[in-house]
Amino acid sequence: MSGLRVAMIGYGFMGAAHSQGWRTGPRVFDLPAEPEMAVIVGRNADAVEEAARKWGWAESATDWREVIARDDIDIVDIVTPGDSHAEIAIAALEAGKHVLCEKPLANTVAEAEAMAEAAERAAARGIRAMVGFTYRRVPAVTFLRNLIAEGVVGTVHQVRASYRQDWLVDPEMPLAWRLQKEHAGSGALGDIGAHAIDLAQFVTGMHLEKVSGTIDTIVKERPLPVSASGLSGKGAPVYGQVTVDDIAIFAGRFESGALASFEASRFATGRKNALAIEVSGDKGALAFDLEDLNNIHFYDRTALADRQGFRKILVTESEHPYVSAWWPAGHMLGYEHGFSHQVKDLIEGIAEGTDPHSTFADGLRVQRVLDAVERSSENDSAWTRVSVDIPAHAG
Amino acid sequence: MSGLRVAMIGYGFMGAAHSQGWRTGPRVFDLPAEPEMAVIVGRNADAVEEAARKWGWAESATDWREVIARDDIDIVDIVTPGDSHAEIAIAALEAGKHVLCEKPLANTVAEAEAMAEAAERAAARGIRAMVGFTYRRVPAVTFLRNLIAEGVVGTVHQVRASYRQDWLVDPEMPLAWRLQKEHAGSGALGDIGAHAIDLAQFVTGMHLEKVSGTIDTIVKERPLPVSASGLSGKGAPVYGQVTVDDIAIFAGRFESGALASFEASRFATGRKNALAIEVSGDKGALAFDLEDLNNIHFYDRTALADRQGFRKILVTESEHPYVSAWWPAGHMLGYEHGFSHQVKDLIEGIAEGTDPHSTFADGLRVQRVLDAVERSSENDSAWTRVSVDIPAHAG
Amino acid sequence: MSGLRVAMIGYGFMGAAHSQGWRTGPRVFDLPAEPEMAVIVGRNADAVEEAARKWGWAESATDWREVIARDDIDIVDIVTPGDSHAEIAIAALEAGKHVLCEKPLANTVAEAEAMAEAAERAAARGIRAMVGFTYRRVPAVTFLRNLIAEGVVGTVHQVRASYRQDWLVDPEMPLAWRLQKEHAGSGALGDIGAHAIDLAQFVTGMHLEKVSGTIDTIVKERPLPVSASGLSGKGAPVYGQVTVDDIAIFAGRFESGALASFEASRFATGRKNALAIEVSGDKGALAFDLEDLNNIHFYDRTALADRQGFRKILVTESEHPYVSAWWPAGHMLGYEHGFSHQVKDLIEGIAEGTDPHSTFADGLRVQRVLDAVERSSENDSAWTRVSVDIPAHAG
Amino acid sequence: MSGLRVAMIGYGFMGAAHSQGWRTGPRVFDLPAEPEMAVIVGRNADAVEEAARKWGWAESATDWREVIARDDIDIVDIVTPGDSHAEIAIAALEAGKHVLCEKPLANTVAEAEAMAEAAERAAARGIRAMVGFTYRRVPAVTFLRNLIAEGVVGTVHQVRASYRQDWLVDPEMPLAWRLQKEHAGSGALGDIGAHAIDLAQFVTGMHLEKVSGTIDTIVKERPLPVSASGLSGKGAPVYGQVTVDDIAIFAGRFESGALASFEASRFATGRKNALAIEVSGDKGALAFDLEDLNNIHFYDRTALADRQGFRKILVTESEHPYVSAWWPAGHMLGYEHGFSHQVKDLIEGIAEGTDPHSTFADGLRVQRVLDAVERSSENDSAWTRVSVDIPAHAG
Repeated sequence: MSGLRVAMIGYGFMGAAHSQGWRTGPRVFDLPAEPEMAVIVGRNADAVEEAARKWGWAESATDWREVIARDDIDIVDIVTPGDSHAEIAIAALEAGKHVLCEKPLANTVAEAEAMAEAAERAAARGIRAMVGFTYRRVPAVTFLRNLIAEGVVGTVHQVRASYRQDWLVDPEMPLAWRLQKEHAGSGALGDIGAHAIDLAQFVTGMHLEKVSGTIDTIVKERPLPVSASGLSGKGAPVYGQVTVDDIAIFAGRFESGALASFEASRFATGRKNALAIEVSGDKGALAFDLEDLNNIHFYDRTALADRQGFRKILVTESEHPYVSAWWPAGHMLGYEHGFSHQVKDLIEGIAEGTDPHSTFADGLRVQRVLDAVERSSENDSAWTRVSVDIPAHAG
Repeated sequence: MSGLRVAMIGYGFMGAAHSQGWRTGPRVFDLPAEPEMAVIVGRNADAVEEAARKWGWAESATDWREVIARDDIDIVDIVTPGDSHAEIAIAALEAGKHVLCEKPLANTVAEAEAMAEAAERAAARGIRAMVGFTYRRVPAVTFLRNLIAEGVVGTVHQVRASYRQDWLVDPEMPLAWRLQKEHAGSGALGDIGAHAIDLAQFVTGMHLEKVSGTIDTIVKERPLPVSASGLSGKGAPVYGQVTVDDIAIFAGRFESGALASFEASRFATGRKNALAIEVSGDKGALAFDLEDLNNIHFYDRTALADRQGFRKILVTESEHPYVSAWWPAGHMLGYEHGFSHQVKDLIEGIAEGTDPHSTFADGLRVQRVLDAVERSSENDSAWTRVSVDIPAHAG
Repeated sequence: MSGLRVAMIGYGFMGAAHSQGWRTGPRVFDLPAEPEMAVIVGRNADAVEEAARKWGWAESATDWREVIARDDIDIVDIVTPGDSHAEIAIAALEAGKHVLCEKPLANTVAEAEAMAEAAERAAARGIRAMVGFTYRRVPAVTFLRNLIAEGVVGTVHQVRASYRQDWLVDPEMPLAWRLQKEHAGSGALGDIGAHAIDLAQFVTGMHLEKVSGTIDTIVKERPLPVSASGLSGKGAPVYGQVTVDDIAIFAGRFESGALASFEASRFATGRKNALAIEVSGDKGALAFDLEDLNNIHFYDRTALADRQGFRKILVTESEHPYVSAWWPAGHMLGYEHGFSHQVKDLIEGIAEGTDPHSTFADGLRVQRVLDAVERSSENDSAWTRVSVDIPAHAG
Repeated sequence: MSGLRVAMIGYGFMGAAHSQGWRTGPRVFDLPAEPEMAVIVGRNADAVEEAARKWGWAESATDWREVIARDDIDIVDIVTPGDSHAEIAIAALEAGKHVLCEKPLANTVAEAEAMAEAAERAAARGIRAMVGFTYRRVPAVTFLRNLIAEGVVGTVHQVRASYRQDWLVDPEMPLAWRLQKEHAGSGALGDIGAHAIDLAQFVTGMHLEKVSGTIDTIVKERPLPVSASGLSGKGAPVYGQVTVDDIAIFAGRFESGALASFEASRFATGRKNALAIEVSGDKGALAFDLEDLNNIHFYDRTALADRQGFRKILVTESEHPYVSAWWPAGHMLGYEHGFSHQVKDLIEGIAEGTDPHSTFADGLRVQRVLDAVERSSENDSAWTRVSVDIPAHAG
């Protein structure tokens, strides 16, 4: 296996981040195959050509179906909005391309199910499918997961997870597409709550069985963007309805019986990107916050009683996951490094013929939890089962 | 008004803390009347005599009814377990004594209602009643409340409150009376969740209208204490049923419509006394954690955009509530100082003829929220109204 | 041994703190003898009478010599300014009274030497002498010292100590007596640097052998207080010379050869009471900051390589020094608790016939280090030996 | 101006970091000219060819003189050890190439002076020279500097700077070339102390006038690497002399008269990359620690007295330097981003015809401070002037 040629569909913020991963990953890690940034695809020819130039893709194109059909493409990387994921991913898998699909897997459970089935069929033909829950590959998160798997927290008693931001606090923030259900599918719950759910399941290795919760919209009307309102911008602003949630508070019950609490909010004033988790068990506890992403906090109940405490571990040492390939010990990493780690693991998975996490089945599980939270909220917060009809051989 | 003679009923941990308040408060603050530690009351004559000696009460007694009947007692301070609060407090108020009653006001809503009514009747005769939610009088908490009242967070969008401890993580921790419903009334919810609820309502000045939540018991059986099991302690331990909750997760809706999340847990490994609150509004946010009780964190959204951040304010300066009477600026206070502040505010309330917070009506409100959480939990977490039948003139 | 009657000389801020210790210590700890707050002494009869009333001393007096001569006094507690310590302490010791003397032991090395000699003679007659370096008895500090003694940091490689405050940042802060050498003896160096030096020597158990450093006065002129200037306060302020240092930066060399860095500053903007120390050794490190006085931070180099980190230990558990006598685990202590611990240790020392630290010899050692720093500063920061002429049998 | 072709001399750790900057900078920022990774130069042909392949340089070469002589090279980037900097940089500047030279500028003041003079001559011909003090371009550091320049701390009263690591704590760590004076020039002082000095001068905009300090070697003998000892590695290790310092403690006096304290240590157990600075002034204070590199802490003395505190500002918002080109607000950056910022500023400087900081004159200043510290240490820590013979027109 020599080079693996990549086509990336989409060119928004996630396009920039994935490009950074494709460009940097192979310069840092010794990979079994060299990914090549072959073609970037978008509907606006000029804009996508400019993106190709800026980010270093060899060509640009406007028709993703044509690109997927090309023989010289090995990997399709999907960074479009969620409502197009299913169509593109299923087509790519059926065309025999390995697929990396940015989270969320899809906007609906039905789409996600179809995708997980397509991934299962593709796997039988040696084709890999991966969902981009990139935060799993922040070294601190991977290390925290490894410690739990090793048993340092013992039996998990409870989990506390939240993702808090504050970019909607200003009531005059315009009604962008992300705040409209027909385009975004979901609000804080699906966008950032999904990360908290995935993290809770990933680091503990446990699955949520049922949920009870509430989603809400704090600011219910916002000014339409001038373009959308059809007005000149000179007069008073025209307001439109916010149709997605901006806060979600819910409890989850794992199959083990342990409880978890979750919060996703875009109204947590002063919190910028606070994806936080704490896992408490009978032997210890572990905590992480994305705003402080080079550290984890570890409490060891097996230590001498007078010297127990939360230990702030700087996850920048050569013993830590992914770290030694970067810089000498003690050098901080940032948000984007996970995208290089994702590339590394996908390329290695392709070479080894195994699916790197998170699989499409994992992505489907998150989608089903989100769906159960929405149904619980509509049903007066009653406890609601997460559907478990996972395709037979997946995940 | 010269001296005010105090009788304290009860002599457990709270007795020690209240004694410290009675002893120290008048040495630090200039009070309009001098409280005198007249008599301490308990059922075991020897033990209560020893407590009197150690803590500095002039006499000890074993019959609280006799003590309450004495003419030379002005204030009755109740620090017994919750199931005796109603009887003692009502009797004391009817006997014309000012009452300080440790939280929780009572173990049931019915008892708490009777107490609030008694307090209302007593108020008409110039008698004061106060519930000991002492954390309100940690200077940092009082200051945080003052800042919210001043408007620094603007409209409150959401509240996040929790009280986390870990003393039940060990499954061999014996089945003490606190873990048995008939004695304790409630578990983590009533013991520590009550503080989180009171704090959320106190600092925001808002009332919870309904709740949705779940209470759970993580370790369901524990070894009986040797005394209780009637065995010699030589053989295998005998296990009994834990009949109170040890974790509670719930959401609350304020009358304003704002959502709050709550957690009370005795299984939060590594957290010792983590009563934490964060209040987020459109102008700013404020946060506090009892494990770091000399500080609050303040985020000011009205600051210049490039220099906003959570500001750690050391609440030890002369401008801060209660502080200037203690030490020069910069000297840390501890847990127990709230008990001196409570004494100060009660004595001043008596002198001025006004009820210091928290009133019995406030205590009743907390009790009703706890009751609603329990009913919600029994009803599949459905949203449940907090009863609002507060006595006409109270609070 | 029944009661021990205490006379306290002085009634400023330290008088309040010591009173709190005498009043509270016996209520919290089971002591072998009961200290009684017998008499408080000051020059202004009205003011000292008011202090007696407020703090709970049985009588007040104006002539310390008379009080020292009384047969019914067992302990003399000296909280006057430093320039009077030697005269009072020596007289009290010679009169056969146990002495607790607030730090600094004295304003000059000569005085401190005379005091250490007096203490040595008194010890031969069973009389105890103690210097009030109260921060040693913050539970976190005592625990940190115990951990070092146990060997958890191994060989000490370096120490970093500082005491930073900011109350002189305002240039219009008046020229109080503390800023005049004839009254205060020293500035930041003697007042707060002394604590950093004592802490460094106390927790490591090592002595400083030589120092090299610089003291400086950042704001050299300040407005005279209206009273001192003899003016009406109506016109322009009159300025006077600040004759003590307000910042000191110095290095120290322990007898072991290890280096230490020190800083004492009253110009560290935003730092209120930041007495901080970090001790680094070949097995681990320990850190403490008085602004966060219930915690220490412990780094264990013998832990597995991938999980080393500074562990924040909440020193509020029953296993920790002094703590179990106070409140249940997890309840924060404050600045003043050290004064109760000091009373406990002194009373126990008297009962057992042993000198509790810090001895007058310890206090002399600190004084000699301060003196060496001043001499180094005057000598272009040249390395300067700490004189070591400690009285033969002391400490 | 179209492309600017870069030759990088050296391929160690710094080569990897600079490569990341050259590769990424142009993908993130819109630059006036496109740098091209043309040729990488090293003495070992195979190794440098492998580095070229891995890091993405178009060719590799072994003779830096030949490369510098090439017409198709515009920029020479020097990442070799410090003892070769002067020769290469001066040759490159004389050949008309723009030069980026990794810090330290040189190993001796004499070399650094020659380089600064060469840079001055080159500037007259429109050739740029820049020293790679990359930490200046961590957004938090640049922002902190901007805030000071804006006046938020007012008059600087004192500075506290340190760089602490712990990689030498293990006494069996071998005697690598970095621990031998003939190769490394200096130890902790020159390697990491240089960063603390540069940071202190850079963020305050002030120059150090004199210093007083001590350098020391804590572990004086270490095992020779097997290769160096000429032995088989089977027998007992052979020890050699450590000839550089591993700890430096010094004070500095700025031209303004303000004092600064410095520490550089490789024995600060548990500290991995703790380059920390705190600047205290009459209006406020600012603090930064490289182990937490996305944050600064700002204390504003002009705020209301009751709400002053250190504010933790997450420097990840669009208003902050360099940030908006990367990711949306709230996404953490890491160590390596400074190398992209360095590329941006150098390319813009070339396009605009101005020298980006830090200039060779800045680098020379740091070298002179290091030299003065060493001379002070040899002279019993006496205060020692920093030589100020900066070339006439430089900096």
